Amino acid sequence: MYSIIILGTGNLAQHLCHSFSEVSSINLIQVFGRNTETLKKFSTYAETCSNPNEIKDADVYIIAVKDDAIAKVSQSLTSKKGIVVHTSGAVEMDAIESVNSGIFYPLQTFTKGKAIDFKSIPICIEAKQSSALQVLRILGEAISETVYEITSDQRKKLHLAAVFANNFTNHLYSISEDICLQEGLPFELLKPLILETAKKVQFITPKEAQTGPARRDDKKSIQNHLSLLKDKKQTELYILFSEAIKKVYEEEL
Amino acid sequence: MYSIIILGTGNLAQHLCHSFSEVSSINLIQVFGRNTETLKKFSTYAETCSNPNEIKDADVYIIAVKDDAIAKVSQSLTSKKGIVVHTSGAVEMDAIESVNSGIFYPLQTFTKGKAIDFKSIPICIEAKQSSALQVLRILGEAISETVYEITSDQRKKLHLAAVFANNFTNHLYSISEDICLQEGLPFELLKPLILETAKKVQFITPKEAQTGPARRDDKKSIQNHLSLLKDKKQTELYILFSEAIKKVYEEEL
Repeated sequence: MYSIIILGTGNLAQHLCHSFSEVSSINLIQVFGRNTETLKKFSTYAETCSNPNEIKDADVYIIAVKDDAIAKVSQSLTSKKGIVVHTSGAVEMDAIESVNSGIFYPLQTFTKGKAIDFKSIPICIEAKQSSALQVLRILGEAISETVYEITSDQRKKLHLAAVFANNFTNHLYSISEDICLQEGLPFELLKPLILETAKKVQFITPKEAQTGPARRDDKKSIQNHLSLLKDKKQTELYILFSEAIKKVYEEEL
Repeated sequence: MYSIIILGTGNLAQHLCHSFSEVSSINLIQVFGRNTETLKKFSTYAETCSNPNEIKDADVYIIAVKDDAIAKVSQSLTSKKGIVVHTSGAVEMDAIESVNSGIFYPLQTFTKGKAIDFKSIPICIEAKQSSALQVLRILGEAISETVYEITSDQRKKLHLAAVFANNFTNHLYSISEDICLQEGLPFELLKPLILETAKKVQFITPKEAQTGPARRDDKKSIQNHLSLLKDKKQTELYILFSEAIKKVYEEEL
């Protein structure tokens, strides 16, 4: 039985608390947060605490706060003997001032108020000490079906890949919504397409799934589309994507 | 009871045949295709025909072939009295040589061998004659929950929006896969994120859903990511997306 403390009161902290509280082999003994108001809702999961000096002893401390607050929060834990991990894809492991530091990075986007099945979320782990890695694996496997050991260099690349797959993809959704609304069309019309596009690459590769004018090098359709675009950034993106897609497939044309 | 004939033997033709064959109020009387080999598998749905002179009389002819073959296929139907529609988002209605032409455009991406629930696919309709529009609506509602009347101009814009939401999004998945594989990481790690990103915008707007370094104008993370990118096109896309996202949110920073 491992005892854990979660530091943070955001979306991820809440999802982690919810998941760990359902696991009998993990004892969530405390939730720390400086905002006493948002901390209140965590009292259903464990004892709450807003004073850094009152943080208890535990086997693992999971820092689930914004990237630029990780270093500061970890300073409250320098005297602790437990493993101290953060949950960020982008922050160095050394941001944590502890001899027993590590990473517990769930690769997912979390939305306030939207339930998510943690079981399907890959958790990427790393630790300074190999004994800590074992503990993190047990913790990860308690809430997820996929626990993956990666290096800091791999984590940086994975985070970069996630920016393409999530942040930039979402901006494309946003552009497609703009184009619909400008034409008096409901964005609802595109939602099934968006979902199916994501489902498709769950079982065939993106390269196999690629369709459209750029893949076929269909110059007429590309020209028609460019003539419809009025926004400069949208036009630049259209051209750049079409060139990039064409480049991938030009050998087969 | 309306009688219909489907012309084409690709993914869409197959999905349409499958859906219409399950509707008792629609009589799929024939499937036309020039490739006798691929035509064979359609014999479970209806009589098949590969000779243009043997196409029967029907209330509606649905041309579900590649964009550049639509005009040619429609020439086999010039003497017919029924409504002749095509299923493309990009081709002019006038590509069909018929006084009673129209559009029956299902807004979705179809994959060979992957079953799809047609009920959730929006079908966009348009017709030269208002009586034809009524018939197309009945046909659409027989297989889908969403039938939407749009103009040709709207259809062009919708098709453009779909290129952003589907083709370009899929290319982003492809880049994220490349970044993973180069680092020895399985693309599997990103699949739950890709799916959740698409699910998110089913119930909140893309603008609300946007996260990441560009939205926060987090210059340090952006610089770190740029230093990791080696591919020129990927770097250009990263910069362009970051600028575009920043522009949308700069007022709130």
